[in-house]
Amino acid sequence: MDTLEAIHSRRSIRKYTNDPVSEDAVRDLLAAAMSAPSAGNEQPWQFVVVNDRGVLTEVARINPFAGMAKEAPLAMLICGDTSLEKYPGFWVQDCSAATQNLLLAAHAKGLGAVWTGIHPNRDRVEGFRRLFKLPESVIPLALVVVGHPAQTLPSEDRYRRERVHLNRW
Amino acid sequence: MDTLEAIHSRRSIRKYTNDPVSEDAVRDLLAAAMSAPSAGNEQPWQFVVVNDRGVLTEVARINPFAGMAKEAPLAMLICGDTSLEKYPGFWVQDCSAATQNLLLAAHAKGLGAVWTGIHPNRDRVEGFRRLFKLPESVIPLALVVVGHPAQTLPSEDRYRRERVHLNRW
Repeated sequence: MDTLEAIHSRRSIRKYTNDPVSEDAVRDLLAAAMSAPSAGNEQPWQFVVVNDRGVLTEVARINPFAGMAKEAPLAMLICGDTSLEKYPGFWVQDCSAATQNLLLAAHAKGLGAVWTGIHPNRDRVEGFRRLFKLPESVIPLALVVVGHPAQTLPSEDRYRRERVHLNRW
Repeated sequence: MDTLEAIHSRRSIRKYTNDPVSEDAVRDLLAAAMSAPSAGNEQPWQFVVVNDRGVLTEVARINPFAGMAKEAPLAMLICGDTSLEKYPGFWVQDCSAATQNLLLAAHAKGLGAVWTGIHPNRDRVEGFRRLFKLPESVIPLALVVVGHPAQTLPSEDRYRRERVHLNRW
Protein backbone atom coordinates (compact mmCIF):
# COMPACT_ATOMS: atom_id res chain seq x y z
CA MET A 1 0.00 0.00 0.00
CA ASP A 2 1.19 3.50 -0.84
CA THR A 3 2.55 5.40 2.16
CA LEU A 4 0.33 8.47 1.92
CA GLU A 5 -2.71 6.28 1.29
CA ALA A 6 -1.86 4.23 4.40
CA ILE A 7 -1.43 7.38 6.49
CA HIS A 8 -4.76 8.83 5.35
CA SER A 9 -6.89 5.67 5.33
CA ARG A 10 -5.71 4.19 8.65
CA ARG A 11 -8.50 4.17 11.21
CA SER A 12 -8.85 2.65 14.68
CA ILE A 13 -10.25 -0.85 14.14
CA ARG A 14 -11.97 -2.39 17.16
CA LYS A 15 -13.78 -5.42 15.66
CA TYR A 16 -11.91 -8.46 14.36
CA THR A 17 -12.59 -11.81 12.75
CA ASN A 18 -11.59 -15.03 14.50
CA ASP A 19 -8.58 -15.51 12.20
CA PRO A 20 -5.22 -15.57 13.95
CA VAL A 21 -2.45 -13.12 13.03
CA SER A 22 0.51 -15.01 11.53
CA GLU A 23 3.91 -15.10 13.16
CA ASP A 24 5.38 -13.47 10.06
CA ALA A 25 2.95 -10.57 10.39
CA VAL A 26 3.83 -10.17 14.07
CA ARG A 27 7.50 -10.01 13.17
CA ASP A 28 6.82 -7.45 10.40
CA LEU A 29 4.87 -5.23 12.80
CA LEU A 30 7.62 -5.37 15.42
CA ALA A 31 10.31 -4.65 12.82
CA ALA A 32 8.32 -1.64 11.62
CA ALA A 33 8.01 -0.38 15.19
CA MET A 34 11.74 -0.78 15.81
CA SER A 35 12.55 1.21 12.64
CA ALA A 36 11.25 4.38 14.25
CA PRO A 37 13.58 7.29 14.92
CA SER A 38 14.54 7.92 18.54
CA ALA A 39 16.52 10.53 20.47
CA GLY A 40 20.18 9.89 19.66
CA ASN A 41 18.99 6.58 18.14
CA GLU A 42 18.56 5.26 21.70
CA GLN A 43 15.78 2.78 20.74
CA PRO A 44 14.47 2.64 24.33
CA TRP A 45 11.66 0.18 23.61
CA GLN A 46 10.51 -3.25 24.75
CA PHE A 47 7.52 -5.20 23.42
CA VAL A 48 5.28 -7.88 24.88
CA VAL A 49 3.34 -9.86 22.26
CA VAL A 50 0.09 -11.11 23.79
CA ASN A 51 -1.78 -13.98 22.17
CA ASP A 52 -2.86 -15.89 25.28
CA ARG A 53 -6.65 -15.70 25.66
CA GLY A 54 -6.46 -15.42 29.45
CA VAL A 55 -4.02 -12.51 29.30
CA LEU A 56 -6.07 -10.75 26.57
CA THR A 57 -9.12 -11.01 28.83
CA GLU A 58 -7.12 -9.65 31.76
CA VAL A 59 -5.82 -6.58 29.86
CA ALA A 60 -9.39 -5.73 28.89
CA ARG A 61 -10.17 -5.68 32.60
CA ILE A 62 -7.22 -3.44 33.50
CA ASN A 63 -7.90 -0.89 30.77
CA PRO A 64 -11.57 -0.03 30.19
CA PHE A 65 -10.65 1.37 26.76
CA ALA A 66 -9.14 -1.98 25.71
CA GLY A 67 -12.34 -4.02 25.97
CA MET A 68 -11.92 -5.19 22.36
CA ALA A 69 -8.86 -7.23 23.46
CA LYS A 70 -11.25 -9.87 24.86
CA GLU A 71 -12.36 -10.70 21.31
CA ALA A 72 -9.04 -10.04 19.56
CA PRO A 73 -6.43 -12.61 18.49
CA LEU A 74 -3.48 -10.42 19.42
CA ALA A 75 -2.24 -7.40 21.29
CA MET A 76 1.15 -5.79 21.60
CA LEU A 77 2.29 -3.95 24.68
CA ILE A 78 4.73 -1.17 23.85
CA CYS A 79 6.95 -0.17 26.77
CA GLY A 80 9.67 2.36 27.35
CA ASP A 81 12.79 1.10 29.10
CA THR A 82 14.31 4.05 30.92
CA SER A 83 17.51 2.08 31.54
CA LEU A 84 18.13 2.32 27.77
CA GLU A 85 17.69 6.10 27.51
CA LYS A 86 20.59 8.31 26.45
CA TYR A 87 18.41 11.43 26.63
CA PRO A 88 16.17 11.09 29.69
CA GLY A 89 12.55 12.05 29.15
CA PHE A 90 12.39 11.32 25.41
CA TRP A 91 11.22 7.70 25.71
CA VAL A 92 7.53 8.61 25.34
CA GLN A 93 8.17 10.30 22.00
CA ASP A 94 10.42 7.48 20.78
CA CYS A 95 7.91 4.77 21.72
CA SER A 96 5.00 6.76 20.27
CA ALA A 97 6.79 6.98 16.92
CA ALA A 98 7.34 3.20 17.12
CA THR A 99 3.64 2.69 17.90
CA GLN A 100 2.59 4.79 14.92
CA ASN A 101 4.89 2.75 12.64
CA LEU A 102 3.28 -0.41 14.02
CA LEU A 103 -0.24 0.88 13.29
CA LEU A 104 0.67 1.91 9.74
CA ALA A 105 2.38 -1.42 9.05
CA ALA A 106 -0.69 -3.30 10.33
CA HIS A 107 -2.98 -1.27 8.08
CA ALA A 108 -0.69 -1.66 5.06
CA LYS A 109 -0.76 -5.44 5.58
CA GLY A 110 -4.57 -5.51 5.67
CA LEU A 111 -4.79 -5.90 9.45
CA GLY A 112 -6.80 -3.67 11.74
CA ALA A 113 -5.43 -2.18 14.93
CA VAL A 114 -6.19 0.33 17.65
CA TRP A 115 -3.89 2.24 20.02
CA THR A 116 -5.15 2.13 23.62
CA GLY A 117 -3.34 4.45 26.01
CA ILE A 118 -1.70 3.44 29.30
CA HIS A 119 0.97 5.93 30.49
CA PRO A 120 0.52 8.48 32.07
CA ASN A 121 -2.65 7.01 33.66
CA ARG A 122 -1.27 5.73 36.97
CA ASP A 123 -3.84 3.00 37.61
CA ARG A 124 -3.33 1.51 34.17
CA VAL A 125 0.47 1.70 34.45
CA GLU A 126 0.35 -0.16 37.76
CA GLY A 127 -2.16 -2.70 36.44
CA PHE A 128 -0.03 -3.59 33.42
CA ARG A 129 3.13 -3.56 35.52
CA ARG A 130 1.68 -6.13 37.89
CA LEU A 131 0.09 -8.31 35.20
CA PHE A 132 3.30 -8.59 33.16
CA LYS A 133 5.72 -8.38 36.11
CA LEU A 134 7.61 -5.59 34.36
CA PRO A 135 11.00 -4.56 35.79
CA GLU A 136 11.21 -1.20 37.57
CA SER A 137 12.78 0.55 34.55
CA VAL A 138 10.08 -0.59 32.12
CA ILE A 139 6.99 1.63 31.75
CA PRO A 140 3.99 0.43 29.72
CA LEU A 141 3.05 3.16 27.24
CA ALA A 142 0.33 1.67 25.05
CA LEU A 143 -1.44 -1.53 24.17
CA VAL A 144 -2.12 -1.96 20.47
CA VAL A 145 -4.87 -4.50 19.80
CA VAL A 146 -4.57 -6.23 16.42
CA GLY A 147 -6.63 -8.57 14.26
CA HIS A 148 -8.12 -9.12 10.84
CA PRO A 149 -10.69 -6.32 10.50
CA ALA A 150 -14.38 -7.15 10.79
CA GLN A 151 -15.33 -3.53 10.14
CA THR A 152 -14.35 -0.98 7.51
CA LEU A 153 -14.24 2.71 8.26
CA PRO A 154 -13.96 5.46 5.64
CA SER A 155 -10.99 7.84 5.52
CA GLU A 156 -11.46 11.04 7.49
CA ASP A 157 -10.11 14.38 6.29
CA ARG A 158 -8.64 15.84 9.48
CA TYR A 159 -6.72 18.71 7.88
CA ARG A 160 -7.44 21.96 9.70
CA ARG A 161 -6.08 25.12 8.19
CA GLU A 162 -6.51 27.00 11.47
CA ARG A 163 -3.89 24.81 13.16
CA VAL A 164 -1.18 26.03 10.76
CA HIS A 165 0.86 29.15 11.47
CA LEU A 166 3.58 30.73 9.30
CA ASN A 167 6.93 31.76 10.84
CA ARG A 168 5.24 33.08 13.99
CA TRP A 169 2.15 32.41 16.09
CA MET B 1 6.39 4.56 -2.13
CA ASP B 2 5.25 1.36 -0.42
CA THR B 3 4.43 1.84 3.27
CA LEU B 4 6.76 -0.82 4.68
CA GLU B 5 9.56 0.35 2.39
CA ALA B 6 9.05 3.93 3.62
CA ILE B 7 9.09 2.80 7.26
CA HIS B 8 12.30 0.80 6.81
CA SER B 9 14.23 3.14 4.50
CA ARG B 10 13.45 6.43 6.30
CA ARG B 11 16.58 7.90 7.85
CA SER B 12 17.35 11.23 9.52
CA ILE B 13 18.49 13.55 6.71
CA ARG B 14 20.52 16.56 7.83
CA LYS B 15 21.95 17.88 4.51
CA TYR B 16 19.75 19.54 1.89
CA THR B 17 20.05 21.10 -1.56
CA ASN B 18 19.12 24.76 -2.07
CA ASP B 19 15.81 23.83 -3.71
CA PRO B 20 12.73 25.15 -1.91
CA VAL B 21 9.99 22.80 -0.69
CA SER B 22 6.76 23.48 -2.61
CA GLU B 23 3.63 24.75 -0.91
CA ASP B 24 1.81 21.62 -2.08
CA ALA B 25 4.40 19.45 -0.35
CA VAL B 26 4.09 21.47 2.85
CA ARG B 27 0.32 20.97 2.78
CA ASP B 28 0.75 17.22 2.16
CA LEU B 29 3.13 16.89 5.11
CA LEU B 30 0.77 18.77 7.43
CA ALA B 31 -2.23 16.72 6.26
CA ALA B 32 -0.27 13.52 6.93
CA ALA B 33 0.61 14.76 10.43
CA MET B 34 -3.01 15.64 11.19
CA SER B 35 -4.16 12.16 10.11
CA ALA B 36 -2.49 10.63 13.15
CA PRO B 37 -4.55 8.89 15.82
CA SER B 38 -4.95 10.72 19.13
CA ALA B 39 -6.50 10.00 22.52
CA GLY B 40 -10.26 10.18 22.02
CA ASN B 41 -9.48 11.74 18.61
CA GLU B 42 -8.61 14.97 20.46
CA GLN B 43 -6.12 16.15 17.78
CA PRO B 44 -4.33 18.45 20.24
CA TRP B 45 -1.77 19.79 17.76
CA GLN B 46 -0.65 23.10 16.32
CA PHE B 47 2.02 23.63 13.66
CA VAL B 48 4.31 26.51 12.77
CA VAL B 49 5.75 26.33 9.26
CA VAL B 50 9.11 28.09 9.18
CA ASN B 51 10.60 29.22 5.87
CA ASP B 52 12.01 32.59 6.92
CA ARG B 53 15.81 32.51 6.78
CA GLY B 54 16.18 34.66 9.89
CA VAL B 55 13.90 32.43 11.93
CA LEU B 56 15.62 29.25 10.65
CA THR B 57 18.94 30.71 11.79
CA GLU B 58 17.47 31.58 15.17
CA VAL B 59 16.05 28.07 15.82
CA ALA B 60 19.50 26.62 15.10
CA ARG B 61 20.81 28.88 17.86
CA ILE B 62 18.12 27.85 20.37
CA ASN B 63 18.52 24.11 19.77
CA PRO B 64 22.12 22.92 19.34
CA PHE B 65 20.80 19.70 17.72
CA ALA B 66 18.98 21.73 15.04
CA GLY B 67 22.08 23.33 13.51
CA MET B 68 21.08 22.00 10.07
CA ALA B 69 18.12 24.42 10.07
CA LYS B 70 20.53 27.24 9.15
CA GLU B 71 21.09 25.62 5.74
CA ALA B 72 17.57 24.16 5.29
CA PRO B 73 14.74 25.63 3.23
CA LEU B 74 12.06 24.65 5.75
CA ALA B 75 11.25 23.51 9.25
CA MET B 76 8.03 22.63 10.97
CA LEU B 77 7.43 23.20 14.65
CA ILE B 78 5.04 20.63 16.11
CA CYS B 79 3.32 21.79 19.28
CA GLY B 80 0.83 20.32 21.72
CA ASP B 81 -2.06 22.56 22.71
CA THR B 82 -3.15 21.47 26.17
CA SER B 83 -6.33 23.57 25.85
CA LEU B 84 -7.47 21.05 23.20
CA GLU B 85 -6.88 17.93 25.31
CA LYS B 86 -9.79 15.68 26.30
CA TYR B 87 -7.43 13.25 28.06
CA PRO B 88 -4.82 15.34 29.89
CA GLY B 89 -1.28 14.05 29.56
CA PHE B 90 -1.67 12.28 26.22
CA TRP B 91 -0.67 15.22 24.00
CA VAL B 92 2.99 14.08 23.78
CA GLN B 93 1.95 10.70 22.34
CA ASP B 94 -0.58 12.26 19.98
CA CYS B 95 1.88 14.83 18.65
CA SER B 96 4.66 12.22 18.36
CA ALA B 97 2.42 10.05 16.18
CA ALA B 98 1.72 13.14 14.06
CA THR B 99 5.45 13.85 13.81
CA GLN B 100 6.19 10.29 12.68
CA ASN B 101 3.49 10.57 9.98
CA LEU B 102 5.11 13.81 8.84
CA LEU B 103 8.55 12.18 8.58
CA LEU B 104 7.21 9.20 6.64
CA ALA B 105 5.24 11.45 4.27
CA ALA B 106 8.37 13.55 3.63
CA HIS B 107 10.42 10.45 2.85
CA ALA B 108 7.69 8.99 0.61
CA LYS B 109 7.65 12.25 -1.36
CA GLY B 110 11.42 12.17 -1.89
CA LEU B 111 12.17 14.82 0.72
CA GLY B 112 14.60 14.43 3.60
CA ALA B 113 13.76 15.33 7.18
CA VAL B 114 15.04 15.04 10.73
CA TRP B 115 13.19 15.15 14.07
CA THR B 116 14.94 17.41 16.57
CA GLY B 117 13.63 17.20 20.12
CA ILE B 118 12.44 20.13 22.24
CA HIS B 119 10.08 19.07 25.09
CA PRO B 120 10.86 18.05 27.84
CA ASN B 121 14.14 20.03 27.69
CA ARG B 122 13.20 23.17 29.63
CA ASP B 123 15.68 25.57 28.03
CA ARG B 124 14.62 24.60 24.54
CA VAL B 125 10.91 24.81 25.41
CA GLU B 126 11.41 28.34 26.78
CA GLY B 127 13.58 29.37 23.81
CA PHE B 128 10.99 28.27 21.25
CA ARG B 129 8.16 29.72 23.34
CA ARG B 130 9.81 33.13 23.33
CA LEU B 131 10.88 33.07 19.68
CA PHE B 132 7.41 32.15 18.40
CA LYS B 133 5.44 33.98 21.14
CA LEU B 134 3.46 30.80 21.81
CA PRO B 135 0.38 31.07 24.04
CA GLU B 136 0.59 29.58 27.53
CA SER B 137 -1.30 26.39 26.54
CA VAL B 138 0.97 25.62 23.57
CA ILE B 139 4.07 23.51 24.23
CA PRO B 140 6.69 23.02 21.50
CA LEU B 141 7.42 19.29 21.17
CA ALA B 142 9.71 18.94 18.18
CA LEU B 143 11.18 20.81 15.24
CA VAL B 144 11.29 18.78 12.04
CA VAL B 145 13.79 20.20 9.55
CA VAL B 146 12.92 19.44 5.91
CA GLY B 147 14.53 19.81 2.49
CA HIS B 148 15.48 18.02 -0.68
CA PRO B 149 18.11 15.51 0.43
CA ALA B 150 21.76 16.17 -0.40
CA GLN B 151 22.79 12.89 1.23
CA THR B 152 21.58 9.30 0.96
CA LEU B 153 21.77 6.90 3.85
CA PRO B 154 21.25 3.13 3.60
CA SER B 155 18.41 1.36 5.42
CA GLU B 156 19.32 0.08 8.88
CA ASP B 157 17.99 -3.20 10.25
CA ARG B 158 17.06 -2.28 13.81
CA TYR B 159 15.07 -5.42 14.65
CA ARG B 160 16.23 -6.84 17.98
CA ARG B 161 14.83 -10.18 19.01
CA GLU B 162 15.81 -9.60 22.64
CA ARG B 163 13.36 -6.70 22.93
CA VAL B 164 10.40 -9.03 22.24
CA HIS B 165 8.64 -10.92 25.03
CA LEU B 166 5.72 -13.35 24.73
CA ASN B 167 2.69 -13.04 27.05
CA ARG B 168 4.87 -12.18 30.05
CA TRP B 169 8.18 -10.49 30.79
